[in-house]
Amino acid sequence: MQATILYGPRDVRFENREEPRIERATDAIIRMSATCVCGSDLWPYRGIAKVAQPTPMGHEYCGIVEEVGKDVTNIRRGQFVVGSFATSDNTCPHCKYGYQSSCAQREFMTRAQAPFLRVPLADGTLVPTPEVPSDAFVPSLLATSDVLGTGWFAADAANVKPGSKVAVVGDGAVGLLGILSAKQMGAERIIAMSRHETRQKLEREFGATDIVSERGDEGVARIKEITQGIGADSVLECVGTQESIMQAVNSTRPGGYIGYVGVPHGVSLPGEQLFFSHVHLHGGPAPVRRYLPELIQLVLDGKINPGKVFDLTLPLAQVAEGYRAMDELRAIKALLKP
Amino acid sequence: MQATILYGPRDVRFENREEPRIERATDAIIRMSATCVCGSDLWPYRGIAKVAQPTPMGHEYCGIVEEVGKDVTNIRRGQFVVGSFATSDNTCPHCKYGYQSSCAQREFMTRAQAPFLRVPLADGTLVPTPEVPSDAFVPSLLATSDVLGTGWFAADAANVKPGSKVAVVGDGAVGLLGILSAKQMGAERIIAMSRHETRQKLEREFGATDIVSERGDEGVARIKEITQGIGADSVLECVGTQESIMQAVNSTRPGGYIGYVGVPHGVSLPGEQLFFSHVHLHGGPAPVRRYLPELIQLVLDGKINPGKVFDLTLPLAQVAEGYRAMDELRAIKALLKP
Repeated sequence: MQATILYGPRDVRFENREEPRIERATDAIIRMSATCVCGSDLWPYRGIAKVAQPTPMGHEYCGIVEEVGKDVTNIRRGQFVVGSFATSDNTCPHCKYGYQSSCAQREFMTRAQAPFLRVPLADGTLVPTPEVPSDAFVPSLLATSDVLGTGWFAADAANVKPGSKVAVVGDGAVGLLGILSAKQMGAERIIAMSRHETRQKLEREFGATDIVSERGDEGVARIKEITQGIGADSVLECVGTQESIMQAVNSTRPGGYIGYVGVPHGVSLPGEQLFFSHVHLHGGPAPVRRYLPELIQLVLDGKINPGKVFDLTLPLAQVAEGYRAMDELRAIKALLKP
Repeated sequence: MQATILYGPRDVRFENREEPRIERATDAIIRMSATCVCGSDLWPYRGIAKVAQPTPMGHEYCGIVEEVGKDVTNIRRGQFVVGSFATSDNTCPHCKYGYQSSCAQREFMTRAQAPFLRVPLADGTLVPTPEVPSDAFVPSLLATSDVLGTGWFAADAANVKPGSKVAVVGDGAVGLLGILSAKQMGAERIIAMSRHETRQKLEREFGATDIVSERGDEGVARIKEITQGIGADSVLECVGTQESIMQAVNSTRPGGYIGYVGVPHGVSLPGEQLFFSHVHLHGGPAPVRRYLPELIQLVLDGKINPGKVFDLTLPLAQVAEGYRAMDELRAIKALLKP
């Protein structure tokens, strides 16, 4: 088969790679219905995170089960399945507490921008749909695999409740779906911190009530103004830079909550400032597996349409153009069809 | 009157100072029943926090109301009252959310090691007891003013629930009362991280089920061992150094909670490590006012005896010896009687 390899900064190639096979009795092989490029793929693409050697890419996936190992009991050949970017046995103590992305047996997936994928711990990682869904559902089901699950975790970690006043830092696909998630959880006011006009339309559609284009102190001042000087109850931090996380800390009211899901790059939190801010801080790699059954159901019931973040669809063979388009902000998120 | 002034490192003097008077219509003046030296007073005493000029000291207090300003309506002359180290109007939005120590009108008290004290915002800051309590209750009521309220907030911020497995970092008076608080909240297992034999007896008495004397990686390994490799559900961080807070992060299970109440000195939290730890982090200056009614009741009902942390009682005039004894770890906490 041909699949995606990152050789170095801005050097994505689609080239021959061995087709995956069952390696352990708990594996499954899926034939990809769709995969995509993640905002976090841009860190190594841009050279900010280093890759030491040619690296297979991709961790968002959904598709049809081709084959399962002999110990797999919940998943059958022919089912349509969605999995998380982090594998999980779904039985260890961390999984039972709902933190499957810290599973004792966790592996981070990294070969999904390909026509076939081996998924370890298939029973604990994959969630099947009741029937094979029509193609129209595929983009939204693919979104549950990471980008929606991550935005949802941001909102959940930020304790969004009916009536909450929420701010969302970051207008990438995760931030956009953080807005959708906050709306689903009943937020009364959702302030999107966004500078890109093309994204603001989708933000409004997903539930944003206010758009703040200022950043830094001016952005904080606008959040304070909108919240009658109090600060937001919940802030979703969906970027992962020092600037974005301090923006979140300074925009939250004392006793309010920050859900942070942007993988921090070079971030260092000043202890004393955090202490006196009185915020709650929670985040990390989203335990998508916890949310998958609920999110898949919301999609199949037509209650949410997170697939709208895919504003570019390409054949998988053109994956390099998907990276380029996202890097250059020509696309929010690129869906890839094998 | 004579009162306590810190002139510089290890230079505490008890000297003439003007008696406080009502300055604003919302003030009260109290005659001190007892006051004490706080662990946080040792930061400037040791020269770690600088004092630019001679500084009046003390922020833990209880006593009899001598006089109230004309706008004070909840507090009357002759009542016995306890207040927090942070003043609060108890009516602003932050107070209503339970974060009175981030009150829009907050002032940090700093003149309580004295026979008389002016308390601003008396209506929102002070809590009266139903009657003037007997002397036997005074140490425990004094403890509610800060050291118990702070330990209680650590346990609350760390989400201690019935059945929780809890670790407490720090065996100062706040850590000790964090143990008492966790016990009151129903913790099943309470692991005290403590090196001082003299304190371990009190830790056991307050509810510690395990004592871990190791620190750093070895301390973390012991916590993991005691919790079957999982980590603690709740960790109370009662010190405020880089070492102690990283000890807390590394001892907490993914999805677990850290309540941190030690004022951070030179602490910087590594974003990526915090992210992948999956912990909840909450803390800050304890909103003691939120807890005072409940804590006072627990004391008056004889259900808790937090005053046991005072293992040294001195006349107020010997305040300098109180600082010395705590600095040299000869005393856990010094109570001062005017």
